[in-house]
This record gives sequence, structure tokens and C-alpha cells, in this order.
Amino acid sequence: MQDFARSSCPIAVALDLLGDKWTLLVVRDLFRGVRRYNEFLESPENIPTSILADRLKRLQAAGLITKTAYQTKPDRFEYQLTRAGKRLGPVLKELVRWSKKQYPETRTFLET
Amino acid sequence: MQDFARSSCPIAVALDLLGDKWTLLVVRDLFRGVRRYNEFLESPENIPTSILADRLKRLQAAGLITKTAYQTKPDRFEYQLTRAGKRLGPVLKELVRWSKKQYPETRTFLET
Repeated sequence: MQDFARSSCPIAVALDLLGDKWTLLVVRDLFRGVRRYNEFLESPENIPTSILADRLKRLQAAGLITKTAYQTKPDRFEYQLTRAGKRLGPVLKELVRWSKKQYPETRTFLET
Repeated sequence: MQDFARSSCPIAVALDLLGDKWTLLVVRDLFRGVRRYNEFLESPENIPTSILADRLKRLQAAGLITKTAYQTKPDRFEYQLTRAGKRLGPVLKELVRWSKKQYPETRTFLET
């Protein structure tokens, strides 16, 4: 049996990785085609670069994204969702559905 | 236009309220019938009482739960999901589905 941080409840285990204000925004950006470090910084929430670096590292360690070099000198990388990362799509979809009902003035990027 | 904390993206707005390691566990407990303060403390994650009090207050302020006195001297309260709170069901369901696929050793309470 894996040693889980808090309990073996799937919600608790998911939140150990995803339960913060930023991680799912990084996942959202990957879903809408963001690939490069600087592109994440351009999203309207202005993610602090230290948090972005940490979340990308954690998502990679958890197997939800891959990191691939697309340039050397200086090294630059692209990030992409793995199959496990893409399976978060329905979670984001239901979160959007709930939020748009609860806060009708929210706007998804595709609508703006 | 409502003044959102970070952006008008529905995911960002939802995470402003729900994006932490504990809030959705409190919602989970309400879904499985937990009503009273001490009952939340019995869940296996051992939520700190200061965090529990804060999250209940925030969920109530956001209109996701109601707080009703069931006893006086001393005052004691019960918490219940509102219709808006219950609409989080599909979010939790997709989070469980993702987590059980990603971490096959997790176990929902109903299975244990």
C-alpha cells in the first residue's frame, strides 16, 4: 500500500498535488496550447515565476507533463500534458461549468 | 462587471475559493452526511480546527453551505450544502475518477 500524505481518499490524494490556487491554472494553459515558460507568464493571473517553476517541476514529477528541450545555448524547454495530465480535462470542464453557473460574469479565454 | 481577484477566468475564480488542500475535503464530508463541527474533525485527514472554522466561514460567505443552530447553551450548529454547494458534486466525481485511475491504491470512504 502506497504511503499517502494524509489519507487514502482519492480526493485528498488529488488535492495533495492539485490543491492550490495555481496548479490547475498551469494545466488550463497547457490545455489551451501554452508550451513555453514565458507564455505561462503572459496569462492574466500573473503567476509568480518562482511558483510557475515549482508547479512545472511538481507536475513533471507526478507524471502529468513532459519537459522537452527545443533549443540549446541557452537551453529552452517546452512542456506538454501526458495522457494522465490530459485526463484532468473533465475535472476542469466541471469546474468551469460550476463556476459559470455560480459566477455568471466569468469568461473563459475562448469567449473573450 | 464583478471585480475578480485574479482574472475573470471561471477556473481562476473557482480556485480563489476552492483552491487549497482542505476546502473540497470539507465539501466531500458534507456530501457524505457530516453535519456537525466535531464530526469534521473525525475525518482521517485530521483537519486542524482553525482551518475547519475558517473554511466553514468562507463556504458560508460564498453561499455554498448553511449554518443552523440545533442546540443552545452552549450554541451548536449544523452545516449543510446549499443548491450551489451540491452543484460541486460533478467536480468531486471527476476528481475521484481521475485520482482512482492515477493512484489505483486510493479508496473512497464508501469502499472501506
